[in-house]
This record gives sequence, structure tokens and C-alpha cells, in this order.
Amino acid sequence: MNFKSDNCGPAHPQVIEAISQANTGFAASYGADELMHQVRDHLRDLFEAPEASVHLVTTGTAANALALSTLTQPWQTIYCTPLAHIHCDECNAPEFYTGGTKLTLVGTADKMTAADLSATLAASGPGVVHVAQPGPLSLTQVTEMGRLYSLDELAALTKTAAAHDLPVHLDGARFANALVALGCSPAEMTWKAGIDAVSFGATKNGCLGVEAVIFFQPKHGWEFELRRKRAGHLMSKNRYLAAQMLGYLENDLWLTSASQANAKAARLADGLRAVPDCHFLAEPQANMIFATLPRRLHQRLHAAGAVYGLNGGPLDHGDPDAPLPMRLVCDWSITEDEIDRFIAILQGA
Amino acid sequence: MNFKSDNCGPAHPQVIEAISQANTGFAASYGADELMHQVRDHLRDLFEAPEASVHLVTTGTAANALALSTLTQPWQTIYCTPLAHIHCDECNAPEFYTGGTKLTLVGTADKMTAADLSATLAASGPGVVHVAQPGPLSLTQVTEMGRLYSLDELAALTKTAAAHDLPVHLDGARFANALVALGCSPAEMTWKAGIDAVSFGATKNGCLGVEAVIFFQPKHGWEFELRRKRAGHLMSKNRYLAAQMLGYLENDLWLTSASQANAKAARLADGLRAVPDCHFLAEPQANMIFATLPRRLHQRLHAAGAVYGLNGGPLDHGDPDAPLPMRLVCDWSITEDEIDRFIAILQGA
Amino acid sequence: MNFKSDNCGPAHPQVIEAISQANTGFAASYGADELMHQVRDHLRDLFEAPEASVHLVTTGTAANALALSTLTQPWQTIYCTPLAHIHCDECNAPEFYTGGTKLTLVGTADKMTAADLSATLAASGPGVVHVAQPGPLSLTQVTEMGRLYSLDELAALTKTAAAHDLPVHLDGARFANALVALGCSPAEMTWKAGIDAVSFGATKNGCLGVEAVIFFQPKHGWEFELRRKRAGHLMSKNRYLAAQMLGYLENDLWLTSASQANAKAARLADGLRAVPDCHFLAEPQANMIFATLPRRLHQRLHAAGAVYGLNGGPLDHGDPDAPLPMRLVCDWSITEDEIDRFIAILQGA
Amino acid sequence: MNFKSDNCGPAHPQVIEAISQANTGFAASYGADELMHQVRDHLRDLFEAPEASVHLVTTGTAANALALSTLTQPWQTIYCTPLAHIHCDECNAPEFYTGGTKLTLVGTADKMTAADLSATLAASGPGVVHVAQPGPLSLTQVTEMGRLYSLDELAALTKTAAAHDLPVHLDGARFANALVALGCSPAEMTWKAGIDAVSFGATKNGCLGVEAVIFFQPKHGWEFELRRKRAGHLMSKNRYLAAQMLGYLENDLWLTSASQANAKAARLADGLRAVPDCHFLAEPQANMIFATLPRRLHQRLHAAGAVYGLNGGPLDHGDPDAPLPMRLVCDWSITEDEIDRFIAILQGA
Repeated sequence: MNFKSDNCGPAHPQVIEAISQANTGFAASYGADELMHQVRDHLRDLFEAPEASVHLVTTGTAANALALSTLTQPWQTIYCTPLAHIHCDECNAPEFYTGGTKLTLVGTADKMTAADLSATLAASGPGVVHVAQPGPLSLTQVTEMGRLYSLDELAALTKTAAAHDLPVHLDGARFANALVALGCSPAEMTWKAGIDAVSFGATKNGCLGVEAVIFFQPKHGWEFELRRKRAGHLMSKNRYLAAQMLGYLENDLWLTSASQANAKAARLADGLRAVPDCHFLAEPQANMIFATLPRRLHQRLHAAGAVYGLNGGPLDHGDPDAPLPMRLVCDWSITEDEIDRFIAILQGA
Repeated sequence: MNFKSDNCGPAHPQVIEAISQANTGFAASYGADELMHQVRDHLRDLFEAPEASVHLVTTGTAANALALSTLTQPWQTIYCTPLAHIHCDECNAPEFYTGGTKLTLVGTADKMTAADLSATLAASGPGVVHVAQPGPLSLTQVTEMGRLYSLDELAALTKTAAAHDLPVHLDGARFANALVALGCSPAEMTWKAGIDAVSFGATKNGCLGVEAVIFFQPKHGWEFELRRKRAGHLMSKNRYLAAQMLGYLENDLWLTSASQANAKAARLADGLRAVPDCHFLAEPQANMIFATLPRRLHQRLHAAGAVYGLNGGPLDHGDPDAPLPMRLVCDWSITEDEIDRFIAILQGA
Repeated sequence: MNFKSDNCGPAHPQVIEAISQANTGFAASYGADELMHQVRDHLRDLFEAPEASVHLVTTGTAANALALSTLTQPWQTIYCTPLAHIHCDECNAPEFYTGGTKLTLVGTADKMTAADLSATLAASGPGVVHVAQPGPLSLTQVTEMGRLYSLDELAALTKTAAAHDLPVHLDGARFANALVALGCSPAEMTWKAGIDAVSFGATKNGCLGVEAVIFFQPKHGWEFELRRKRAGHLMSKNRYLAAQMLGYLENDLWLTSASQANAKAARLADGLRAVPDCHFLAEPQANMIFATLPRRLHQRLHAAGAVYGLNGGPLDHGDPDAPLPMRLVCDWSITEDEIDRFIAILQGA
Repeated sequence: MNFKSDNCGPAHPQVIEAISQANTGFAASYGADELMHQVRDHLRDLFEAPEASVHLVTTGTAANALALSTLTQPWQTIYCTPLAHIHCDECNAPEFYTGGTKLTLVGTADKMTAADLSATLAASGPGVVHVAQPGPLSLTQVTEMGRLYSLDELAALTKTAAAHDLPVHLDGARFANALVALGCSPAEMTWKAGIDAVSFGATKNGCLGVEAVIFFQPKHGWEFELRRKRAGHLMSKNRYLAAQMLGYLENDLWLTSASQANAKAARLADGLRAVPDCHFLAEPQANMIFATLPRRLHQRLHAAGAVYGLNGGPLDHGDPDAPLPMRLVCDWSITEDEIDRFIAILQGA
């Protein structure tokens, strides 16, 4: 019963197999390998973007920081939510990569609205030398609390950004989970919705460690390549990143995996809804659940060996009825049996 | 016949197998996994350094830049040779990671002597606010031209650095090749010789993409961890880096691989010595050969499909006797048959 | 009637005179001049800090950014208020100088309480590699809305910072105005209250362009010198900065000037209190007034040629009764007559 | 007898007077003052460049680092000579401001030829992601050893740079001394010779601390303004910088001062030529002399109180005939009498 994170589970065997198959003979290094050409073609097809610039890196933080630094200047500010991964969980990576760009927090918790963004931009000072200049908008889809931006919400936000000539980046660490939840195409969730650059996550959904950065305007490509090399993120044996991505995309594994993860989170959420004193902090829309349980129920789960994210204080003493917040994440590998056991423990079985 | 680089060959099957075996069940992320503990123990044992701080990253550029940035300040200068990888091949990664440290070139081509370093340091200006302050010494072993520093040479260099209170970094992208060539222990080639931090390369010698950074003074550990995360080089699924390293170290695979690569380069060098008009640019001491051949011999090799590094002009026209420099690298996987075929072509067979 | 800013008025003649007197013969450059020794002695005496490290720069932004960068690491965060000059008015200078340190906003508008700071620090993650590590606290005295921290408030804040091992910086762009308002000594408002470094402003209070940075722990001195030079803020002809500062300190000019400015702001505030429909946004405590006036009164002031900071919309159309916020700043040079005229206009005279 | 540096002498009284005259009433801050408009107009006229972007800063290091950072990218390299001030005397300021651009040394000592530059650029790797990309050329006029580039030499260098699409920066810390020595116009020595940006020094030639940065392509202006503010180099009371520059330009004071300084250096050089055992290290062409004297003559000079730059070892012991290098700089204020006395001492008078 491990709901700690979708980066704790195993990689999908199909991805491991792709690596093994790539491990034959000599291959050009630093991204000039044949597999990388296939990755580029495949992702361009997938995104209906034949001119897109496609790059691979090993982590989501690198994908985000490199993408954003390509879109911004150090005297600008990036707009993101208070819970954005780039703000809360990357140890100043965006500030490092950009050379000191500021992050301006917009909206509440994990989401912002076009109205929030408009209000912030209305108070900004483009052309005033004393203040950070408006820079990129960075949105996260699935959000850090497991919610989604609808296509309409995305479009409204990117339209606001465009009205101020600001580029838009999408942190898609859980891109596939969002896509299958929305039931739209990759193009619809990105460039057709006004997104300029996307961190297309694969690590959490079945890979060992690979993320694609895609720019829909190819002019950014060469700068990104230089930034990636300068950051030590250009792999000499790039074929093993490319192989992972190909294994991930083959036969729509990426969509299958995400559907499985989402379905399991839905099953878990259904179970939780029947637990008295369980309160959702956000309506689950993909593969993550944020909710509270009384301390006594957490104690029972821990005694049974359940593993998940828990905040808000000591488990072993304090008011047994005090609600403590938790984060539960389902990856593709978690079994229905484990989910059912988790719920059964809560129901006192 | 691919002598292009030791980053073009395949990973060793034992390393692939280690990844597969690591791919079961849930594991703590971000380096808290059980395999990482084993890596740490193994490398500490290997280096006879029970307190050493051990970290994994995916590329040599990241290893070097992160290690150096931990040892320096942005108003200092790093001392390295004119051909140092950190100067010539990392697209300003050291400058980026350090926030603008300068690189001061010492010695000739790929090596420096203690006398070279002394002369440079004698002209430096510690305490003078206008000039870059003396910072770390960075040495490469195997050097960029395939040569070695003897243990005595290393000791003389580090003693000079220590006399100026400067830390010493070792770029060991081909650490194993140097070690087996010198026939010494890891401790002897590092901390016993006065090295403070080492980039312990594994990618070129049989892995997919993993390098260890080892500090013999553990005080640097936490800063390195923060710098690594801030740079997006902390892998969420770190177990796959750890598994590679364990597979690489198991049963001394790393030493066997390097011995094989060196032996093959020696066989190749022996063959070349018998080729009239082949002139060595540096005496081969590990797994790389730098030499010149007349253009007409290069043409013959290329016609036969040989792949290797060639500099100095067009192949298809010009003086057929003009000597053109080449770089030949042997990895563990190249066969004796390929080497013999390469030589046979040169001998006109 | 110019209440635009205390950086719009003239320098005090005594400061100009000091520059003229310094302009004789040769003097050592880069801060080794005799006048700089006098500055150092004078400020150490003034602050009762015989070991303090004292440095001069030409702008407040440089003073703040250099001081903060000396106290922080790029993976940390600086704590300041939402209206802090370092956050709102320095075009990412702190981020630039620190190499990407984040700024975390604490408190409301221009002030924070110890409770605010405690709550923020309780939610911080020292030792967690994913998040920005806690770094310096930066307070502004006089605040950006013309208010003061009492000595007790300062002590409570610095005590909270000290409990988390965080250094404290004071942005004293209007140091003298605060000091005379509080009626305390420089030592009491700084190191006795737990401040580690202060930007001691002089430009706004009678100089042409000079600020001192003072560290009460001398260990920071040499790093600051290197940072200042590296930033191009070490003046070759430093004697002219030193002369300004000596002229500013001589015969307590700095205190006299600040007292005059505060007294004039008090006179202006008294006048405004009698104006119907004038509402203070903050209780004036030094030489700045933040208040609202109906649009029609602003129109009347502008017609009469008054100059001051006005926010919140067009002056020439809109609801004549709508309250629009203004900032009025008094420097030492503004006359009582101008103040009285300003009030008279509002009173319809 | 102070020949230490042209930053040790006094400012010209006309410049001091200009500051005093500027010190009346209120003025717009941050460069919106009336005097700044006059500076802009004056320099545009002087350079026959009506569109040029003109900015003031307080130091030469700031002028150079800000100008270069506006012309380069952090993954590029700047080309300069081994003795360039930006390389030897600015404590990594260019690296800091650019975010880690490398400096590649071209030529010998203080000068490079177009052939030197061509050779270096021929070996560079534009488009190769592993190496620093070619960036700006930075030349110094007067050079760091007191020599000049002729207009033909400048044109040949800038033509080479242009052939590689590289912008050209001129470090004109002693711009006026070069100009009067060459007898050409400001336009001829800059944009007509292919220079894109110039650091127009005024501090060393009679000001307190002001340098102009001029871009002949106005597109760089706004970025420079943001970079300057972000670096804390935008003066709130900019009028005092503007006043200095106006005082400096008025009645061609800048040319008169430089002519005086050059003439005095020529008189000093003439005297030295008659001193047996005095050997010039570079032919003096402006206001600086680099030469050697036997230790015994240095001893005699020091006993008489002469002040100047001396390198190469202790003065008080060692071979009395050993030649020790010195740097002698004449500013506008040094008297002929002092020069004659200096020579007389050497002649044993």
C-alpha cells in the first residue's frame, strides 16, 4: 500500500525492454542517435506540430528550469501559483537557470484564473525600470493538488498572457494523466490552447527518468540546446533517454498507464467518500487525492503499513479526532487489491 | 570499426541487468533508496574513506561543474590546462554553475607540471581586490590526450596547491582507465595524493549515464546536495542511477572493463607503430590514441567504413601525404578483430 | 511645492563643500585614501562598534543587494515584506547579486511582526533539499509607507530570526529619519537590537549619492570588498564618496537634516488632518505621508503646480469625489512656506 | 611627483563647479533630469550619432561589464587581449554580469592584430554545442600598456569580427587620450571604424566618477537600462553624474585635459630616453609609460618621494643593477616642474 508518489513505483517493463533493445553496437552520442530522430518524429506527430523543437532531459526540474530560462530574461518575473512546483519544490532552480528572474504568485493554492492573472498584470509595470518586467506565465497541468485546468480555463489564461505579449509554459509532469482526464488531444491541451512550451513528463508515468521539452516555435531550439549543454543536461549516451521515450510512447503505453493511474485514484476516492470524517481538500480529477482524516485513522493506516504523504503534526500523540491532511498518489502499478485493503482498514475491517 | 568515443559504445550487459533487477516494487525517491545506501558504502570502502560524501549525477559535465562550484567562489579562478574538458567541452558549464568563476590556463595542452602551477600562482594576486582570487586546481586523469599523471606528479601538483590553500578536483571521466594503467588503489590516486574531490566517471566505461562525485571532506556534502537539486540533477527515481553504479562495481566490472579498453588501445597502438608515416602526438597510456596519418591513409580508412575523430581539414582533396591528426578511442566493447582489421587496412592488406 | 521624493531635492551645501575641499592634490585610489580612514573611524564611533566593517557605495540598491548577497546563499530565501524596496523597486537586483536567492514575503504591506515571521519560518523546510533554505531577514526602517519599527518590535523580530540562525539586514535608506523619530542611538537601532548589517543611507538626506554598508561582524568585510569590486561598485576616486559622508556626518548634519525633514512632514500631516476627505493610509512617523484625497482636490493641487506621487487612475476624468492615494515626501530643503501653500490650496484658499 | 595613476589626481575645477551649479532646487530623479537630456544631446552631436543610446554610470568596470553583458549571451566567449582590463583588473565583473561568459585571450600582452583574431576565430566552434560560442570582441583604446590601435588596425579588427557576426566593444577608459593622440574624430574612432558600443571614460581625465556607455544601435538601450538598474548602477540623483559629464565636455575641457596629460607624458618620456639604463617596454603613445630602471635608480626616486607603479621585487635589497619595471601615468594636473624634478633625480642632479 504505497501511495507516497508516482516517482516511487517501478518503471514499466516495456520501457526497460526498450532500453535493453537499444543497447546494441555503437550509436552517435549527444543526441545525434537514430532513436532520437524517431523520438522527434513521434512527438511532432503526436502534437500535430511538424516544426516543433523537441529535447530530452532527465528530470522535471531541469525541463521546467531550462524551458523557462529560454523564455525569459533575468529582469523579468514568471507568473505561477503559490503551490507551483517551480516555486515550492525546486530549490530555486528557476532563479538559478534564469540568472535571477523573480516568481510572482498568482491565484490561490494550485490554480489561478484569468481574472487573477489580469489583476496581477494590471498592477505590473512594463516599461518601468525599477520593477521586475512581466515575463512568462507558467501553468501546471495536472496541478499540484490533483486538479485540472479545463481547455476553456487554459484558453482564457493564455489569451490574457498573449494580450501582454507573455509566453506560456506548461509544467506537464503529469501531462498524460491530465490528457486522459480531459479526453482531448495533445495539441488541444497545448498549442491550440495557447501554450508555447511544454515540459512533457514521462518519469512519473512509467519511465526511469526522462522528460521532453517541446517548443512549438522552433526558434527556441538552438538556445535550448546550448542551455542544456551548459547545464550538464546533455547526455552523452542520449540513446537511453530516447529509448525510454520510445518505449513510453509505443502502443500508447503512456495513455494506458495514465488511464490506469487515474482509474485507480478514482476507485480510491470512491472508497474514501464512504469513510466518515474523510474530507477532500480538492476534488480529485486525475491520479492524486488531497484529503484529511482524523489522527486515529492515520494511526490505524500506519500500523497496517500504509505509506503516503502526511502533513500537520505528530502521528503518535495529540487529539485523536484532529483532522490531518494527506496526499495519496496512484501510479500505474498500484493494484486494486491494495486500494481496497487501504479502504478496508479505514472502514475498520 | 568504431573508435569515435567511449561514449558511443553500448553499456555493459551487467549494468543493464542491474537496472532490470532494481525495477521491482516501490522505492524511496530522491536518493533515499536502499540501493543508494549500498552505493555509498561500496564507494567508501573502495576509496578507504569511511566519511566521504558520495553523490550520483547523470553526466560528467554536471559532476565537474557541481563539484567545482562547491569548492570555489565566483570571484576566484580555477586552474586547469588549455585542453581541459571543463574549459573546452562544457559550453561554459563551470562558469554557469559557479556564478562566473574564471578559468586560468596552466601548462601545455593536456598537462601541467608543479612548476607550471607554481609560476602561475606566483603571479596571482590573493588579497588584491582587483584580480580574480586563486581558487581550485582541477586536473584530468586520464588527460584529454590520453596521458596520465603519475602519482608523483599528482602529489607535486597537489602539494603546490595546498601551499596556497587551494582545494584540488580530479576530473576522472576515465578514472578506471587511469587506475588500471597506474596499477594503484583508488585512495592512492585521490586523497592520498592530495585530491579533495573527484568526478568518478562510469558512463564511458560501461554505464548508461552515471557519475559519482566524491568529497573526502564530508563538510561539502550538504551544499552539494542543494546545488544538485537546484540544478535539476537530483533524480526522483535515483534507484536507477544507483543500480547502474552497483552493477558497474560488482565483481570489479569497472576494472575489468577498463583493463580491456586499455589493452585494446595498446594493441591498436602497437599496430600503428608499424605503420609508416603514423606519428603519435602523445604517448598512449590508457584507452585513447592521438596520432597523425597521411590524408591518403585516412581516405582508405573511411572508404572501409572506419569511424573515428578526424581533425585538420577536408578528407576528399588536398595533399595526399599531408599528415592529419586523429583521435582513436577504445571502449570495452570493441573487438580485437576490428582493431586488426583497422591496422590491416593501413598496411594495405 | 515638490513632494515627489527625497531624492529630487538638492544636496546639502555642506556636502558640496566637503567635495570641493577634498579636491586637492593626489590621493590613493580605490578606498585607500585618508578620508576613507576618517569615515571608517567616524562611523565606528557613531555606532559604538570599533570592529565594524565599513564600506561605501553610490546607491541604495547596491548597498542592499551587496549586503544581502554577502549574508546569503543562492539556494536560500530572504524574508521581507510585500512592499519591501528590495522586492518592489530594485528590478531583481537581490536575485541578481545573490545568484538566484528567492524573496519570501512576510507580513502585510510595509511591516511584519515577529508572529508573522514565526509563522512563515514554522512552515519553512530547513534541511529539506527541495525547498529554498531559510536565509536572511531584511527589514526596512523607515518602512516604505513611512512607518517605524519600535526598538521592541525590532528586537522581537531579530530574536525570532536568531532562533533560526538567520542573519538580519536593515535597509536604512532613511536611517536618520528613523533614528531621530525614535530618539535612540545608532547602536540601539542596529546591533543592540540584533541587526547584523545595515544599509546606512545618506543620499536621500543631503548627499549626492553615497550609502554606507556596515557589518557588525568584521568577518564579512573582505567578501564584501570582492563582491563590490566584482560589481563595479568600487570607485577609483573613492575620496569623493568619503568626502560626502564626512560632510554629511560633520556637526551632526545628518541628524539635523533628518529632524528638519521629519518636522516638515509633521507640519504637512497636521495640515492634512484638517482637510475634510483626506484619509491617511498609514500613520506618518517620519518624513513620508501616504493618504488619499478626492480626485477634485488632486486636480486643484496639480493646477497649482504641486508635484508628488499619485496613484490610482487618471486625474483629468472620473468621479470627482473618488479617493486617490498619494505619497508626499519631505526632504530637508522643502520650505514651511511651500507646505503651508500646499495646505492652503486644499483648504480652498 | 605622483605618477601612480590618472585616478589619483584631483577632478578638474570646472567639473566641481558644474556640480555646484547643478545643486539648486528639485530635479527629476533616475535620469529624467534636464541635465541628462543635455548630456545625451551633447554626446550624440559629438559622435555624429543622432540615434545613439547614451547612459551614464560611475565606474569603468560597470561601464564595461554592463555594455558587454548587453552584447553577449552566457554561453558565448568574449575576445580580448591577455592584459585587457576586463580580464586582469575587474575581479570577474564581466563573468558576473554576463552570467558566466568566458573570456578568450587573443594577441600578445595589450594588443591583438586582425590576423590573431582570425586565427582564433578559425579555431572556434560556432554551432558546436560543446564549446563556448563566439561572442563580442572587446578592444581597449588607449591599451593597458599605453599604446594605440591606429584607425586602420581598428578597422581590420572590426571587419574580422563582422565577418563572424560579432559585435565590437571599445573600452575607452582613456578615450580622450587616444583621440587627441590619433587626431581623429570620435565617430572615426568608433562607429566609423566598426565599433558597436563604447565605454567613454571621463573619470581618469578630470571627473569625480562618471563614464558614458554609448550604443550606436539604439535597440540596446532599454535592455541596458534594465541591466543598469538591476545592478544598482542607476543613480537616484543622476543630475550629479550628468553635471560632471557636461562640465567635462564644456569648452572641450575633455580634449584639453587629455592633450595636457599626453604632452606631459611625452615630456617625461623624452627625459627618460636620456637616462642610461632606462628601457621602454612599449613605445609611449598617450599618457602612460612602461619602462624599466635599475633597482638603484628606483631607490633614488623613492628616497626623493616619487610615487608610481613598481613591479618585480623588493626595492630595498637585491642586485642594484637589476632592471625593475615601472608604470608612470600622467594626468592633466601633474606639473612640468614635477616631471623635470623626476628626471633630474634620475640624472643624479
